[in-house]
Amino acid sequence: MEDGWFLEKHTPHAGLTLAVKERLYGAKSAYQYLEVLDTFEFGRMLLLDGYVMLTERDEFIYHEMIVHPALTRHACPERVLIVGGGDGGSVREVLRHPTIGKIHLVEIDQMVIDVSREYFPQVAAGLDDARVEIHVGDGFDRVERARAEFDVIIVDSIDPMGEAAKLFSAAFYGHARRALREGGILVCQTESPFYNGNVVKGVIEKLRGLFTHAAPYIAHIPTYPSGLWSFSFASDAVDPKTAPLRPEPEFLSALKYYTPQVSQAAFTTPRYMQTSLEQ
Amino acid sequence: MEDGWFLEKHTPHAGLTLAVKERLYGAKSAYQYLEVLDTFEFGRMLLLDGYVMLTERDEFIYHEMIVHPALTRHACPERVLIVGGGDGGSVREVLRHPTIGKIHLVEIDQMVIDVSREYFPQVAAGLDDARVEIHVGDGFDRVERARAEFDVIIVDSIDPMGEAAKLFSAAFYGHARRALREGGILVCQTESPFYNGNVVKGVIEKLRGLFTHAAPYIAHIPTYPSGLWSFSFASDAVDPKTAPLRPEPEFLSALKYYTPQVSQAAFTTPRYMQTSLEQ
Repeated sequence: MEDGWFLEKHTPHAGLTLAVKERLYGAKSAYQYLEVLDTFEFGRMLLLDGYVMLTERDEFIYHEMIVHPALTRHACPERVLIVGGGDGGSVREVLRHPTIGKIHLVEIDQMVIDVSREYFPQVAAGLDDARVEIHVGDGFDRVERARAEFDVIIVDSIDPMGEAAKLFSAAFYGHARRALREGGILVCQTESPFYNGNVVKGVIEKLRGLFTHAAPYIAHIPTYPSGLWSFSFASDAVDPKTAPLRPEPEFLSALKYYTPQVSQAAFTTPRYMQTSLEQ
Repeated sequence: MEDGWFLEKHTPHAGLTLAVKERLYGAKSAYQYLEVLDTFEFGRMLLLDGYVMLTERDEFIYHEMIVHPALTRHACPERVLIVGGGDGGSVREVLRHPTIGKIHLVEIDQMVIDVSREYFPQVAAGLDDARVEIHVGDGFDRVERARAEFDVIIVDSIDPMGEAAKLFSAAFYGHARRALREGGILVCQTESPFYNGNVVKGVIEKLRGLFTHAAPYIAHIPTYPSGLWSFSFASDAVDPKTAPLRPEPEFLSALKYYTPQVSQAAFTTPRYMQTSLEQ
């Protein structure tokens, strides 16, 4: 690595590298090492254990696409649970929907919330909204306890390693199904289909065993491994491929990636991804 | 850069880096420096002046997507011109269409053809097909001379720098329009919409000034800058957003990225790309 360049290895033999202007923060929490770098190309960047969680320049894509495909397909989303997502980006997007009454955010690491508030105010802004209730704790436990409580559950977690691995388990998805109200939708981030097709396949198989409808969808995120990212959508009531999207609300003009057409096209995946799911 | 790692800077401050197993070839032609590296993650990789042209692992995406969206929308593609594309990947994909009678390939650099034949036999295989006529020369001149000669013209060029810049000019697109037969389609590679939105915008504006229909479409290519790539489609006869795709031919089962659905979804672009084109 050249001096002054950050490297994230996406595999042992391939990576993304970014020139760093300044290191703004670095500290260990009870769960992980948090770091904030200011980069020339992508602005400020949050790292957890050395992995890019978000950058100022392209976080809009991840956050718009983990939130709006589910929320625009739900008939009337009022109560939303976000598991993880302590940076606040998903909260910010959920709050654009005028039907929202309450968002529960369950983040395991208080320091993620604190660091986002300090270094990423435009991402964290929504965390102080009166409709947001923040719980610092284990998202698995919160979901396990809930019964018919949420319209949408968003699993905005890190990769399936360590503490987060249980958020990719069939047990968790079963709990999530019980935690949803009638008409509810579960959406999870599920890694790069190019490098981690086995993760997408594993999640979709588990979801198909539990929900009437389950399908992956994709978005293009430049700073994530391979640049192609997947999310998985599951619901007993809503088929994402045929569900009408609620009439385009005013908020859409504020978005930079999502459109209703993008939301539909996102469920069309490359053939290699379809083939992997059929095998 | 660590020893043994290749780096392509996609901007002065961001890049892709790949661990290299072995350097197989390096030589200067009259036009550029050609290099073949064997990488751990993407297999063999062809570089022109240090930029990734193709890798064994992901070249299928670029080549399927520069060829099939146009060829499946054309009523009966018989005569095809490929400008650039000396590696043979686009030829290989065009040859999958049973209606093809003749492919003219105009590559400026004989060494690209030779190196591809030697180091990328699975990419170059089609170059020896009896339906392929290879001209080593200037694609601009070939297009300028042609009148109502081709059903599809594919501009499989390098980036708009040096000799290739004229392939992104309104003059060239005007010549291409005259070189097409009735019902003809022009398709060009037009860079990363994320980093080079100005290129896409410039090309689409020129094409819209000349053709009845012009639209960009996208594909996800991990080793290209930002991972998101654009192509531009232009035709007087064929509106890519409404044209029926010819019935799915047998060849589709051999493809790894393209499906008819992918081909349609590809014309749905992120809002930031749409916004850039409207400005």
